[in-house]
Amino acid sequence: MLGSTHGTLTTDSRRARAIACGEHPTQVVHGRPAEAGDLDVSGRPLYADVPDLDRLFRPESLAVIGASDTEGRPNTGITRQLLAWSERVGARLHPVHPTRESVFGIPCFPSVADLPEQVDLAVLLLSDPLAVIDELAAAKVKFAVAFASGFAETGAEGAAAQERLAAAVARADGLRLLGPNTNLNAFERFRDDLDGPAIALITQSGHQGRPVFSLQEIGIRLSHWAPTGNEADLETADFISYFAERPEVGAIAAYVEGLKDGRAFLLAADRAARRGVPVVAVKVGRTETGARTAASHTGKLTGADAVVDAAMRQYGVIRVDGLDELQDTATLLARARRPRSPGAAGPRPEGVVVYSISGGTGAHFADLATEAGLPLPTLSEAKQAELHQWIPDYLSVANPVDNGGHPVGDWRGPRILDAILDDPSVGVLICPITGPFPPMSDKLAEDLVAAAERTDKLVCVVWGSPVGTEAAYRETLLGSSRVATFRTFANCITAVRAHLDHTRFTSAYRSPFDEAPRSPSPSFRKAKALMRPGQQLSEHAAKQLLRAYGIRVPREQLVTSAAAAVRAASLVGYPVVMKASGARIAHKTELGLVKVGLTSASQIRDAYRELTDIARYEDVSLDGVLVCQMVERGVEMVVGVTHDDLFGPTVTVGLGGVLVEVLRDSAVRVPPFAEDQAHAMLAELRGRALLDGVRGAPPADVDALVEVVLRVQRMALELGDEIAELDINPLMVLPRGQGAVALDALAVCR
Amino acid sequence: MLGSTHGTLTTDSRRARAIACGEHPTQVVHGRPAEAGDLDVSGRPLYADVPDLDRLFRPESLAVIGASDTEGRPNTGITRQLLAWSERVGARLHPVHPTRESVFGIPCFPSVADLPEQVDLAVLLLSDPLAVIDELAAAKVKFAVAFASGFAETGAEGAAAQERLAAAVARADGLRLLGPNTNLNAFERFRDDLDGPAIALITQSGHQGRPVFSLQEIGIRLSHWAPTGNEADLETADFISYFAERPEVGAIAAYVEGLKDGRAFLLAADRAARRGVPVVAVKVGRTETGARTAASHTGKLTGADAVVDAAMRQYGVIRVDGLDELQDTATLLARARRPRSPGAAGPRPEGVVVYSISGGTGAHFADLATEAGLPLPTLSEAKQAELHQWIPDYLSVANPVDNGGHPVGDWRGPRILDAILDDPSVGVLICPITGPFPPMSDKLAEDLVAAAERTDKLVCVVWGSPVGTEAAYRETLLGSSRVATFRTFANCITAVRAHLDHTRFTSAYRSPFDEAPRSPSPSFRKAKALMRPGQQLSEHAAKQLLRAYGIRVPREQLVTSAAAAVRAASLVGYPVVMKASGARIAHKTELGLVKVGLTSASQIRDAYRELTDIARYEDVSLDGVLVCQMVERGVEMVVGVTHDDLFGPTVTVGLGGVLVEVLRDSAVRVPPFAEDQAHAMLAELRGRALLDGVRGAPPADVDALVEVVLRVQRMALELGDEIAELDINPLMVLPRGQGAVALDALAVCR
Repeated sequence: MLGSTHGTLTTDSRRARAIACGEHPTQVVHGRPAEAGDLDVSGRPLYADVPDLDRLFRPESLAVIGASDTEGRPNTGITRQLLAWSERVGARLHPVHPTRESVFGIPCFPSVADLPEQVDLAVLLLSDPLAVIDELAAAKVKFAVAFASGFAETGAEGAAAQERLAAAVARADGLRLLGPNTNLNAFERFRDDLDGPAIALITQSGHQGRPVFSLQEIGIRLSHWAPTGNEADLETADFISYFAERPEVGAIAAYVEGLKDGRAFLLAADRAARRGVPVVAVKVGRTETGARTAASHTGKLTGADAVVDAAMRQYGVIRVDGLDELQDTATLLARARRPRSPGAAGPRPEGVVVYSISGGTGAHFADLATEAGLPLPTLSEAKQAELHQWIPDYLSVANPVDNGGHPVGDWRGPRILDAILDDPSVGVLICPITGPFPPMSDKLAEDLVAAAERTDKLVCVVWGSPVGTEAAYRETLLGSSRVATFRTFANCITAVRAHLDHTRFTSAYRSPFDEAPRSPSPSFRKAKALMRPGQQLSEHAAKQLLRAYGIRVPREQLVTSAAAAVRAASLVGYPVVMKASGARIAHKTELGLVKVGLTSASQIRDAYRELTDIARYEDVSLDGVLVCQMVERGVEMVVGVTHDDLFGPTVTVGLGGVLVEVLRDSAVRVPPFAEDQAHAMLAELRGRALLDGVRGAPPADVDALVEVVLRVQRMALELGDEIAELDINPLMVLPRGQGAVALDALAVCR
Repeated sequence: MLGSTHGTLTTDSRRARAIACGEHPTQVVHGRPAEAGDLDVSGRPLYADVPDLDRLFRPESLAVIGASDTEGRPNTGITRQLLAWSERVGARLHPVHPTRESVFGIPCFPSVADLPEQVDLAVLLLSDPLAVIDELAAAKVKFAVAFASGFAETGAEGAAAQERLAAAVARADGLRLLGPNTNLNAFERFRDDLDGPAIALITQSGHQGRPVFSLQEIGIRLSHWAPTGNEADLETADFISYFAERPEVGAIAAYVEGLKDGRAFLLAADRAARRGVPVVAVKVGRTETGARTAASHTGKLTGADAVVDAAMRQYGVIRVDGLDELQDTATLLARARRPRSPGAAGPRPEGVVVYSISGGTGAHFADLATEAGLPLPTLSEAKQAELHQWIPDYLSVANPVDNGGHPVGDWRGPRILDAILDDPSVGVLICPITGPFPPMSDKLAEDLVAAAERTDKLVCVVWGSPVGTEAAYRETLLGSSRVATFRTFANCITAVRAHLDHTRFTSAYRSPFDEAPRSPSPSFRKAKALMRPGQQLSEHAAKQLLRAYGIRVPREQLVTSAAAAVRAASLVGYPVVMKASGARIAHKTELGLVKVGLTSASQIRDAYRELTDIARYEDVSLDGVLVCQMVERGVEMVVGVTHDDLFGPTVTVGLGGVLVEVLRDSAVRVPPFAEDQAHAMLAELRGRALLDGVRGAPPADVDALVEVVLRVQRMALELGDEIAELDINPLMVLPRGQGAVALDALAVCR
């Protein structure tokens, strides 16, 4: 059975389900944490090392290959900037140039081989970085950064050059390369006067990273910036892994146009999820336009957007659309990573309280927050009574808390804030200040900053003024490293929701890589024998494939005469369904090649004749006629496997019939995933309620459906690279306790 | 027939359709513009006057009743502010107080009757404004503003006091009241140094209006602010009508918690739509929480949110969620109202071009813009060649246009902008500048401002830096009254989309009020006779109601014996459906009270016995059994009428069966509406494609469906106040050309 892919059931209940659902249990649970070199049954890695990038970001010594101090040359500006940077961080800089004696007064060396020490980092200001890779390797340089453009982003020729560069780096033992087509972003000025957990930034485009980097100017701490460029060697995944292990990093913000390797990204995201470090990402490619333009910009795969979206969700990566959301969400998540105070027990409560100086503002914010799914608990009677000591009785303090304005102006302001933050149901306080009214808002801002210092709960403020030059905003609020200050209701709500979702996700997280199957199931050999490379299997063969994986199919027989059909019907049991069977038949129903509800031998003989007549008329080649058990009274679902360019085989489940055809109501996951994700897939379906039973129908056997999804995942893992397409349509999910039956199946071999 | 509600068909095609669809045509088109006093057939007004509010906003003289100059009293602050304001605008201010000789050195009058002139405006700083209403009326004061709170927002007692106040104002001929529970917002300082079309602001909460009002501080012109408070007399609708007629107003921004009168709001929105003046509104009440807290804040109705949403869309009101979206959308729409240059022919083209100094930024923006439905045309080969004169060949200029950065720094920058803006497919240029890089972004900002001066097309900039203190942003961009500057991609996209949608909407707009039916159709008298106040009608009676309005129902007979059922079946034609019929039967199918596909006399006799047995067993009282023609092979829809607290009867259409039950896939409209809106309802359905034919099904008769929706609207208008609920479920829409049949109906009289 598929035990290895889900870890939440006891062995007994698994066996019981396996017996109810199909033929044979397959595998035992591994449960051994994955380690370097481990592969899953599809041959994909289950573990990725964390590259040690300390000396890339903080080299003790660096060489600038192609350094210049000739005014007007682009390399001169870069050299000057690196010089300033190396002085600031205390790194020894050595210019390298074949003919210069010195650069900016610093002695220059003719080649890498001539360097006076083994340097940590070489910055390559050469149009052909390939030319020096062997030299760098020989000199035991740890990291190289290549600025040159003209590689994969320019087309096929550039891509070939990039492959040659990547190959050279791979041969150069110990050397890692950032770029090509990257820039100086890693060596910018990072403010060291800011405290609290920091944001680490990863971008494929320098311009797109600038807004997050600029957060430093409004008091938000940044620790690193990795401009990955074309990712010939080091890629986004490497930086996620590295940053997830750095103690100063509170959140990772990433701007991604395309991914180099889907699996590497998931392994890195898995590492971040295990360590509870949030990854917030913009991933371009929501639309065809976006995918096309992004791909042409970076020369990387964008993947089918729904698959990217699902893959990110599986590993808790928070996907946002705008750079402003990236800034605001990463900021809040970093601030939320501040350790809880020594006295505090357990995680922060989830409850969100909205506190405002205007009932209108509270109502408006609460409306939007509730719509977005934030939990706004009603405060207890006792807490409300406490608040009414300071807030007039005619104002509502149930949540939102409306103070009517005046109490913020005096000693009552801090008491109210402390009373709210003391409440055991409250984890987050949000104070929207839509317009500055200095007599109140200045004091309120100060009180909020002070209250945030006295609590380890989250204090969020929305400064709604479009002006943004007010002292209460720029000095008081932005001057606090504890308060998270937003400019819009929407971004505050998005960020708080991301924080609550991420906390919930990581607290329940178990890595699917630890439990992924590493060796083929007994089903695999049976299945292998059925594969016909490059061909579509007949319905009958496709169903045998399903049976091999313990997925139930109707009793059925393939017959080649009317008499045999009648015999088959009595074995299968009346009423029966008869269908034309052949390797290349699509749209059976539309062609009239399916007859249902046949209840007598004469009907069967008529149906046999009619099916073979139609097949002849439509010029369809048959391998026979299937006589199948008729299964009614269930919920029709679709379960299938498709191949994604970026992530490989994926598993899809959808509601059958009209819902999947008209509304495309389906959910997708990238293997490996456990039972919880199979349930999450069903929860994503808009028509989910159908499985619970509507219009008097009984609830469907969701456990059996989940089991089928996991068995199909097993097929995807073991056969995924040999199957172009697998579709069970429909899978009839019977009432609870009765299982699920694959009524029809399509399988196309690669 | 229902000709009066749709104006786009010729009379002949209407008659043809009427004959195909039902029994008799009903009414002729009016087409006469509605005027004061006109009522529709439901007794609701078809016209609202525009109140003349000139002297409210710009009084030549005003009295301050309850004026004070005693330090520390709240009225003193208000008096001082009004004094400063009156000096600024040149209005004569007269303090009124029973005992003071003077206030701030200005002679004070003991009562309204003693005022030295007939004043335009009286500001009431009294806790009981009711006390002076008669005096104000006697003194022929035009406007009063009441600051006092403690009315409808506090509960039943306050609501009663507010009703007394409203009644007194209604009796006072010529007096209009703003408030109570309002403030000084109308008399704030409006900058007069800004040009271009202005934003007029309406809010029910002063605090919530502050962000829009503050737009003045970043260079955006505001003309008015109407703080409507509790709306005992003047309401949001009055201000929308008034502002729509003011030449200086380019867009109306409204913050609405609840509406006083749904119809008044629609008539005002209709006026704005006719004049092409955009109304952008935040309406609280997306969720139950929001609706409840908003209602308790203003004591007004919030209406069912889906109905509010639909009503706004019917009249082109742009609903947004955040105050930041309200600011940004109103700003762009106001700027877009600047008249086109004398030479320009026709409206601005719709095409949007994205122009950036980074390919990554362009790709990201284009991705989000395309997802939001903005039209990003590919520029012509000729235009691309023109742009490549200044932009390197390896960069894409198809749209998005990526200039690679360097060309903005020199003479090429303005040429590129002009070349893009000259393109006949382009109406909007958007330049996202995600991070400031002064050597480029300062010059780019200047070029954009200059280019906007040379064109009447829209130039939008996104300044993505979170800092926002850069000179290029604060001085150059915000200093332009032509460029619309945003801080986020999302708000720019929302605003541009709103502009394009609104332009398209108003250019095709025809007021439904001009064509609403004003007198009952011949159907009405027949229908009246079928109504049973307080009761649910039997299925048979409900279907007669539908027949009265020309909606086709199956051939059917109500019988009370098995023998009669057999006779009925041969009249109706085999196969038939038999259903229990009675006044209070719900869930017929679940109870087994429907038998389908009966093909013989013996089946009919069995079915008759079974239905009457079940009815007895289930204790259901029957008025007989319906023997109905069986109708198959169509798309099941639901069409119905429900009553909304704010807008009265509404019409809903949805996809039948699973789609409406599980996914609530339906659309709603507030009558009166024309055929275009009936089509728009269908377009809103997520499962719309079902009507076009899926899985080999033929396309459904959408015209017949639209006709049924319009006939149901006619029922809603004529019977809406007597019907609590009307549901056709299912309406079977047959293949194109074959009509639509109401297979079952439920009607509950009030």
